[in-house]
Amino acid sequence: MYVILVYDVGEKRVGKMLKLCRKYLHWIQNSVFEGEITEVKLKELLSKARAIMTLEEDSVLVFKSRDEKWLEKEIVGQERNTLDNFI
Amino acid sequence: MYVILVYDVGEKRVGKMLKLCRKYLHWIQNSVFEGEITEVKLKELLSKARAIMTLEEDSVLVFKSRDEKWLEKEIVGQERNTLDNFI
Repeated sequence: MYVILVYDVGEKRVGKMLKLCRKYLHWIQNSVFEGEITEVKLKELLSKARAIMTLEEDSVLVFKSRDEKWLEKEIVGQERNTLDNFI
Repeated sequence: MYVILVYDVGEKRVGKMLKLCRKYLHWIQNSVFEGEITEVKLKELLSKARAIMTLEEDSVLVFKSRDEKWLEKEIVGQERNTLDNFI
């Protein structure tokens, strides 16, 4: 399954969330990630995210598509170097 | 067409971008919007966004799907009140 994940968390929790999400997905923008992931791995990621989040303030959005080909991506401006995922 | 739009712009430009995107799409999180939009209206929106952005620093990501039903959405934590779009 292909997912897009966007988080919006308090400044103090940004570092932890970034580190967590980068373990599972490709980082494409400030707080935006994408990639192929299994249902099981996504559950694991979201469970770890909940442990970091202050649920009354923070949020994580996940858009799931069975196949990446159903989504077309357009970028205006700067794109993050996706190489970070392979280092 | 159904789109998800995420912007990452310098603090000084956030207000303008928010105001612009809310004219075309539903606000669902800090810098995330979604909604049905035509190709023509999306071009208009992105052209106006470019005029606001500092292209060397800022970015706007758009994920397009022909149909919303191909995307499943999951939210952890807080969701913005989408009513803001109708006020």
